[in-house]
Amino acid sequence: MNMKVTPTRGTKDYLPEEVKIRDYIQKTILKTYEEYGFQKITTPILEDIERLNKSNGGENLSLIFQILKRGDKLEAAKNSDNIEDLVDTGLRYDLTLPLSRYYANNRSKIRFPFKSIQMDQVFRAERPQKGRLRQFYQCDIDIIGEPTNVAEIQLIDITTRALLQLGFKDFTVRINDRRILRDMILSAGFKDSDVDSVCITFDKLDKVGMKGVEEELIEKGFAAEVVLQFIESIDPAKGDDDIYCQNPNENETIEQMNQVIFAINNLSEGKYKIKYDKSLVRGMGYYTGMVFEIVSSKFSSSIAGGGRYDNMIGKFLKEDVPAVGFSIGFERIASILLEEGFVIPDKQKEIALLYDKSDNIVEVIRYAEQLRADNSIVSMIMKGKKIGKQIDNLMNTGFDQVIQYGK
Amino acid sequence: MNMKVTPTRGTKDYLPEEVKIRDYIQKTILKTYEEYGFQKITTPILEDIERLNKSNGGENLSLIFQILKRGDKLEAAKNSDNIEDLVDTGLRYDLTLPLSRYYANNRSKIRFPFKSIQMDQVFRAERPQKGRLRQFYQCDIDIIGEPTNVAEIQLIDITTRALLQLGFKDFTVRINDRRILRDMILSAGFKDSDVDSVCITFDKLDKVGMKGVEEELIEKGFAAEVVLQFIESIDPAKGDDDIYCQNPNENETIEQMNQVIFAINNLSEGKYKIKYDKSLVRGMGYYTGMVFEIVSSKFSSSIAGGGRYDNMIGKFLKEDVPAVGFSIGFERIASILLEEGFVIPDKQKEIALLYDKSDNIVEVIRYAEQLRADNSIVSMIMKGKKIGKQIDNLMNTGFDQVIQYGK
Repeated sequence: MNMKVTPTRGTKDYLPEEVKIRDYIQKTILKTYEEYGFQKITTPILEDIERLNKSNGGENLSLIFQILKRGDKLEAAKNSDNIEDLVDTGLRYDLTLPLSRYYANNRSKIRFPFKSIQMDQVFRAERPQKGRLRQFYQCDIDIIGEPTNVAEIQLIDITTRALLQLGFKDFTVRINDRRILRDMILSAGFKDSDVDSVCITFDKLDKVGMKGVEEELIEKGFAAEVVLQFIESIDPAKGDDDIYCQNPNENETIEQMNQVIFAINNLSEGKYKIKYDKSLVRGMGYYTGMVFEIVSSKFSSSIAGGGRYDNMIGKFLKEDVPAVGFSIGFERIASILLEEGFVIPDKQKEIALLYDKSDNIVEVIRYAEQLRADNSIVSMIMKGKKIGKQIDNLMNTGFDQVIQYGK
Repeated sequence: MNMKVTPTRGTKDYLPEEVKIRDYIQKTILKTYEEYGFQKITTPILEDIERLNKSNGGENLSLIFQILKRGDKLEAAKNSDNIEDLVDTGLRYDLTLPLSRYYANNRSKIRFPFKSIQMDQVFRAERPQKGRLRQFYQCDIDIIGEPTNVAEIQLIDITTRALLQLGFKDFTVRINDRRILRDMILSAGFKDSDVDSVCITFDKLDKVGMKGVEEELIEKGFAAEVVLQFIESIDPAKGDDDIYCQNPNENETIEQMNQVIFAINNLSEGKYKIKYDKSLVRGMGYYTGMVFEIVSSKFSSSIAGGGRYDNMIGKFLKEDVPAVGFSIGFERIASILLEEGFVIPDKQKEIALLYDKSDNIVEVIRYAEQLRADNSIVSMIMKGKKIGKQIDNLMNTGFDQVIQYGK
């Protein structure tokens, strides 16, 4: 019996033309980020399971791929009733936890403030629905060590520049602040300890709608009148866009966010919009200040998201270090561009050089080398029996020209 | 208590300057491979555990990272005595098995013959000794669908070109053929079913020496006189380099290998050597014909290796499809170049632009944009309290120039 040929559930094979476009997108984003002084780093895909489990990853914690211990350690744990004893590592579910650890581990060897780029794969054991992959790329930039909102302004400015560079337009940056949201949650009557749980549910607004949020909160056991008051206060369909918070202590927070909106409105030169959105949550539990995402009427969900997480690095060091990040949903960007028939600029010419079994192979290789002088791609291919059909096939699979050696 | 900051055992954080060089190496190799008509593909890191376990990966099969089932499936398997029931996926240990599956899955959508490039990460649960990583990159090229030795000639020619491009020289390509090796093993008195086991042990020659090979074979239970005769026949220290095989059926095999040696000697233009090596094994169980690797007196082990594996794709399809691959040991290449103080050509100038809290941030961003006009990298950084010390720090962390905004 032959082995199954399809990729593991929730993963994908990428065809050469898809890889070309995916690599081009990454290269374009990387180039923009580097020009602004951000530096690419890489962290391991494998992570200690303890670190993953203790992170504030919201619902992602239930989606971690867990890796079995090996050798003697597996042998020793084998008869445990607790499945957790069998596991010592897992696959990272995002790039923010690894970055925080990386910063703590390498801070004496890197710049301060540290501006990082990560373009790397993360893993989540999602139910593989349409477009939901279990292994996918994220493109993150983060600024570590900058407490002021200049960090937020820079991240939004640079991320939108990368998107514009790729031909995206007419998008909107939505912005909110976790502290304002928190005040709204508390003044609706929730308890302090409920905030994370309410945020996690509310983050599903895009997918399940306001009614779905209401149902899930009530299912979670919260009092109906509290849920309803909260939904009333936060429903984007109700009330205007002015930044408003019942808690007068948040005046400074509002002032900071207004500065970001003002600066970005200025820098955007009308190419995209930024607006305050009181219903914006972002799923992660680790955000402490401003949160933001990029949406467009053309796509059903956000194409980039991020925020400030000033407390995460403190889990690894004795001191808190301010940090803000912005992540482009690479897979969404790539699938939009592929669907739109995106063509890479300055594609190299591809030549198929047909040779015969009896040809001197060293001479054929030398001739191919000459053909490459004008930056053409030249692929040597042995002549088949039906030369006409072979040439048709070659032209159909993307070659621009077929040359027969010696003719 | 703070969380541990070091990466998971056997993995590494890469600093920005290391990433720069690693990316440059990959870009250089990729560019060479693409010019010759090879096409980059990507396959998932996650693989069905069944496919991994049924592959002929030699000793690598004992190094597979296994991933726990999730949800109901884990619940159902939890009380099984058999640890295998808990697992459904694993991490790939090489790029050849995924490529074979990929070819079988996508053959109607790709070129024939298919010339693939893979630059991707693989995972092996090695004991982390010096330089042995559990997560590392391989750079593979493969030709699928070319039965003649033109495939071997092309792979050796192109791989060596990539290495020369990176500044490597004075290396030697060692070549052998599994069929000749097999004849030697059989004529020493081993049985047909022993061949894989003997090859796996013999592949450790580099690490354990001839005495170590002898001991391991005897430990495996093979008769001492058989082991000794085999070692006598294959010891590179004994006998000359002429290709010789006791089995007259292998004349065609020898002729084919001689053609490869002749062509490469011609194409190498004296920049490197190629030579027959009767002691060359390569560890993988799946090789069926010629095997080859690249060594240099400067490095203790090979920097590239590959061979023909004509039977692997047949595990996924009803028909065998000829295939040959050559893999550059990327991590070895990268660590050699890093140790040698490799400098990337045409590095961009890096400017730190210092601004003050009171500066108009939009104006600072616009000024930075002007500074980028000559392709400089410009990073905006807020002025610290001790400006002299800050400038020193910036210059020490790789900036080429510090500019103070408004001065």
